[in-house]
Amino acid sequence: MKKNLGSLPAVYPMPVLMIGTYDENGKTDVMNAAWGQICDYDKIFISLSEDHKTCANFLKTKAFTVALADADHLAEADWFGTVSGNDTEDKFERTGMHAEKSEFVNAPVIAEFPLTMECELVRVLETDGIYGAIGRIVNVKAEESILNAEGKVDIGKTNFAMFDQFSNAYYGTGEKLANAWDIGVSRFG
Amino acid sequence: MKKNLGSLPAVYPMPVLMIGTYDENGKTDVMNAAWGQICDYDKIFISLSEDHKTCANFLKTKAFTVALADADHLAEADWFGTVSGNDTEDKFERTGMHAEKSEFVNAPVIAEFPLTMECELVRVLETDGIYGAIGRIVNVKAEESILNAEGKVDIGKTNFAMFDQFSNAYYGTGEKLANAWDIGVSRFG
Repeated sequence: MKKNLGSLPAVYPMPVLMIGTYDENGKTDVMNAAWGQICDYDKIFISLSEDHKTCANFLKTKAFTVALADADHLAEADWFGTVSGNDTEDKFERTGMHAEKSEFVNAPVIAEFPLTMECELVRVLETDGIYGAIGRIVNVKAEESILNAEGKVDIGKTNFAMFDQFSNAYYGTGEKLANAWDIGVSRFG
Repeated sequence: MKKNLGSLPAVYPMPVLMIGTYDENGKTDVMNAAWGQICDYDKIFISLSEDHKTCANFLKTKAFTVALADADHLAEADWFGTVSGNDTEDKFERTGMHAEKSEFVNAPVIAEFPLTMECELVRVLETDGIYGAIGRIVNVKAEESILNAEGKVDIGKTNFAMFDQFSNAYYGTGEKLANAWDIGVSRFG
């Protein structure tokens, strides 16, 4: 039995993305965003409100980073989503986290998060009430501890968080269900 | 110790989205897409290759649906990602799944998936090598069995799958880690 729920942002799961930028004085800012996704093999699209300090920052620096938040730093990640970079608060002093400049783009890499995409701003998209940034992923920086023997990210070695917008909650990854492009052809040919 | 991995599509997790459309003869097609995300409270953005039958279809019908695949139908969902709608194969005959026309848009709702976003095509976006569709979510249709007492989707009652593009694998949801806009202020004020 199906029910009509009306119009809702019903994609699940959403990632917990940490968008890192520098302001006009070189001060590091970071915000929490769930509405971001890969849009090409080397590009990411993030949707956010234009009034975020992050937007003013990437328009100036033409760069941003996107880290994946993990369970070990979830309180920090969540708090970054509740404090505006337009205020005077120093988000790093308060949380004790650390950032250093990316080797590749003019944006900060936050040391404590295990994976970061370092992005050049390709385009700001304003259409149909949407404000978004398209970034070219120049490099992915990852902690050695989350890599397998082949040097690839192994989800079993991570504890990345995901976001549930139906109830505003964070979840972890559960069991591996299947390999892609495999379970289907095994069943249906 | 951080390693540079080069340019990678490193968002995690990705959803397992089933894009449903009608072709010019009213035949139902469905494809598997991971590169989709909410981009406004009532809009979704999906990135895909322009040569998909899905694109020809939504250009004609101005509509598509987006269902979330769950563990119970993962072989079907995976197989939908391996067979092109440009071929003659009937994806529904082979899998035994069923679709009926949405009450709201000119696109099919696949009965077996527990949640479907019914979308009007707002815009096709072609920029910087990206081909994407923006849809307005007119309605969300969900199985009563995944709703809580307030009629909202309860992730604890679902078994939605997610996609890991690092190893091309599907995972389930794990434990709830925290409430958002809560764990951060509890720790940092």
